[in-house]
Amino acid sequence: MHRGMKKRANSESFVEPLDCVVRDLHLLPLGVGAERRSGATLYQQLYDSLRSAVLDGRLQPGTRLPSTRAVALELGVARNTVIVVFEQLVAEGFLRSRVGDGTWVADFEPELLSRPVRTGPKSPRARREGVSGGMASPLSVRGRAIVGVSRGAPGPVDGAFQPGLPDIAAFPHRTWARILARHARTPEHARLGYGDAAGDPRLRTAIAAYVTATRGVRCSPERVVPVAGAQAALDLCVRLLLDPGDPAWIEEPGYAGARAALLGAGARIEPIPVDAEGIDVAAGEARCPGARLAYITPSCQFPLGATLSLERRLRLLDWAERAGAFVIEDDYDSEYRYRGRPITALQGIDADGRVAYVGTFSKTMFPALRVGYVIAPEGLAAAFAHAVRNTGQSVPQPVQGALAEFIDAGHYGRHVRRMRTLYARRRARLFALVGEHLSDVMELVPCEAGMQVAGLFVDGPDDRAVAAAGARAGLALAPLSGYWLGPGGRAGLHLGYAGVSEEALGRAVPKLARVMGLR
Amino acid sequence: MHRGMKKRANSESFVEPLDCVVRDLHLLPLGVGAERRSGATLYQQLYDSLRSAVLDGRLQPGTRLPSTRAVALELGVARNTVIVVFEQLVAEGFLRSRVGDGTWVADFEPELLSRPVRTGPKSPRARREGVSGGMASPLSVRGRAIVGVSRGAPGPVDGAFQPGLPDIAAFPHRTWARILARHARTPEHARLGYGDAAGDPRLRTAIAAYVTATRGVRCSPERVVPVAGAQAALDLCVRLLLDPGDPAWIEEPGYAGARAALLGAGARIEPIPVDAEGIDVAAGEARCPGARLAYITPSCQFPLGATLSLERRLRLLDWAERAGAFVIEDDYDSEYRYRGRPITALQGIDADGRVAYVGTFSKTMFPALRVGYVIAPEGLAAAFAHAVRNTGQSVPQPVQGALAEFIDAGHYGRHVRRMRTLYARRRARLFALVGEHLSDVMELVPCEAGMQVAGLFVDGPDDRAVAAAGARAGLALAPLSGYWLGPGGRAGLHLGYAGVSEEALGRAVPKLARVMGLR
Repeated sequence: MHRGMKKRANSESFVEPLDCVVRDLHLLPLGVGAERRSGATLYQQLYDSLRSAVLDGRLQPGTRLPSTRAVALELGVARNTVIVVFEQLVAEGFLRSRVGDGTWVADFEPELLSRPVRTGPKSPRARREGVSGGMASPLSVRGRAIVGVSRGAPGPVDGAFQPGLPDIAAFPHRTWARILARHARTPEHARLGYGDAAGDPRLRTAIAAYVTATRGVRCSPERVVPVAGAQAALDLCVRLLLDPGDPAWIEEPGYAGARAALLGAGARIEPIPVDAEGIDVAAGEARCPGARLAYITPSCQFPLGATLSLERRLRLLDWAERAGAFVIEDDYDSEYRYRGRPITALQGIDADGRVAYVGTFSKTMFPALRVGYVIAPEGLAAAFAHAVRNTGQSVPQPVQGALAEFIDAGHYGRHVRRMRTLYARRRARLFALVGEHLSDVMELVPCEAGMQVAGLFVDGPDDRAVAAAGARAGLALAPLSGYWLGPGGRAGLHLGYAGVSEEALGRAVPKLARVMGLR
Repeated sequence: MHRGMKKRANSESFVEPLDCVVRDLHLLPLGVGAERRSGATLYQQLYDSLRSAVLDGRLQPGTRLPSTRAVALELGVARNTVIVVFEQLVAEGFLRSRVGDGTWVADFEPELLSRPVRTGPKSPRARREGVSGGMASPLSVRGRAIVGVSRGAPGPVDGAFQPGLPDIAAFPHRTWARILARHARTPEHARLGYGDAAGDPRLRTAIAAYVTATRGVRCSPERVVPVAGAQAALDLCVRLLLDPGDPAWIEEPGYAGARAALLGAGARIEPIPVDAEGIDVAAGEARCPGARLAYITPSCQFPLGATLSLERRLRLLDWAERAGAFVIEDDYDSEYRYRGRPITALQGIDADGRVAYVGTFSKTMFPALRVGYVIAPEGLAAAFAHAVRNTGQSVPQPVQGALAEFIDAGHYGRHVRRMRTLYARRRARLFALVGEHLSDVMELVPCEAGMQVAGLFVDGPDDRAVAAAGARAGLALAPLSGYWLGPGGRAGLHLGYAGVSEEALGRAVPKLARVMGLR
């Protein structure tokens, strides 16, 4: 295997390498009563020591090693261990052996062997031209864009007031575990191979039926593509629908996850203002008529809670059709609407295959489930399915099969309905408590939907300072101004209530009042 | 909410819209003994009909609707149903109402309302300039690159000879289901929120310990990033480490999944030839010294099975360090080595933070588990963890927690060892059977590792024709020539044996001989 090797006879090295092993590598005492490196087998210690000695040049190329018998005696290990180590190092090319001729350190070209295995800090290395300012990053420009948006650390799972967090304790874990276990214990083997790369057909069918019945979405199961959550869905959509440099509308204020996905895909984002009717489509058309994509949250604008009006829905679709642009409808928590039925999806009135609809189970089951889905625009189902395979974003079995059963058997709808009642009570309690304790400083934005509500500071303290003070008091407070990209941001807080019991709200709101200096 | 609406009094439309509903929308008879649209509630039927009538202009803007009582009587449905439908359509902006003044179709601008909701095929639409040749695709240029590589449909899960498929029936499903169910039934609620976006620390620790002990990888748990399989890991690595247009080495012949990930990321791929020592690093340096990345399978080259020699490993790392390039080490099935221990990972001798190591549980547990991982290059752990959050590629709970326990409790290692013995027997049987039935036409490439073996046709029939004939006979045959990008491809077959019992091999090899016209 190793070209250019020369056999050398070097009898003086007969003792030296063992000596080297003994002296420098602290292999002795290895035998009875010896101290051993914690966790490492004798095999591993001997292997590591010899390999390191070859790599850093202490055992020179062409050096003949002592016999396995001599090494075993000297080190106090079983001869068989030494044989296995030598064989492995021969297999890996560090040593070479010939029957009847002993074992030798392989010959390498000198410059390769002079390369020490360093373990200390690395020297910074300029990655490429055009990296402006400061430390050069080893990441690609795209990589830096992908990690460029920091979305804030999540708060404690039971703490007020993290937006987007459902009540995890209220989830029917036993029912879910029972279904999951059955699917894992007696799986259909045909579902465990590489076959369903675009998703388990049972889950795709269950989701299609659910969104058709509850959201007015129009789709066949083939257009449903399960992925690892809404963020993965956004990531997939923007990569498939946008090229680097393409302009895209986002809501101002808006969702940082969407901003991260768009910037990671190299999009040029155009913040379009939001009012009580949702995104201002006419402003979007005026500012950036040539956008290739619009990211919107029509059911419950994130973070201000507006429902996109019908007129704007029609105008948005009309623009998308004329511009040949796509709309990503992020329907992240539309299940929770406390007056009337949930507003039906924009997707349901899309006549031209312009809308990619994104849904998630993070808000209705629990976030770490990591299951969401895209309803591909009409005509793009095959492309989305293919892309999921080539980007590897599929959801595990048995989670897919179990989730399909969980939906089909009605457990999912039942849980959503229970949570709607529960969250409505919490929402009412939050509004009452804020009215009682915080009415002088904060005004809640009216909103009949969702899992959180925006509270605008009446007489603007710095919301980042309030959030920092809240963090010290154990409150997870999202400063509202952080949702704006441009100027014009309003100070306030985005208050999640879904995951906070009424009792906890009763403690947290007065605590927030103290944080804001009211008590 | 809806600006520019004018109140109109239009008493003539009092009866007409109901008539329209009745006549055109087949809502009558809806009452007792009536036929109903299958699956749709009366609420849904009435809602859909009225909404469609507004959208397609049959109900004109400003039209006054009959009273809910009149509609209920006429249609034979409960009045409350009509009230709820009207309220919903008011909430969504299709209708408007005022106390004591009835319900009206909302006023829209005429051009918006003239937009019919089409359901037929869409006209093709040129997406942008610069789309060359043929049908314009609505996908972005990047999107077309992502879906551009077709990786072949997987064969039946129990059929010979699909490469990469483990023995799914031999997996300890009961043990796995028991652990999974326990984690799902009594989860730590703190693990079910948004907290562990970069992966469950228990799983990251378990994987770090496992790859350190078995693969000679050097890493801390912080560098382990669990993702949805090896393909997701490749997708993440190439996006973080490469920019569009950057050159990257791939093995020739090589793995189509890596090709798909690289092309999807816009890389310019440079096929570098492979020989018995693995990728020819010197050839790579000669052809494309400025590559930013090299994708390699050093433990068991895919598909030819060579182990990358130590000299080339050192040379590759030396080049990467000098060029500031990264190496993706895809260690996809290194657990299966039938002589000696598995070759230790290239990552373990990387001194300069050049190697991103990719591992997977697809080959050792089952493919649809969709769990793999990246060991981030030293210094890039935080960036990789952040990127997983922003691209949403996390692995679900309870799969992460359960997998950590499955590894820590020794079930994983035990299963791998059992499979190594099992696959070794199958491998020996395949070699014997091919020697017996196919020695005139096919020569197996010697390879002591993996789950498949390359068979070169001695006197070249067209391997795609053989694969097509095999498919008709129920054999999943991967034509070897399909692994080459450039000229110089060899005809043959890539024969997976891990998922095929010895009995099945005893039937499949003679069948392959018949397919090849030998019997």
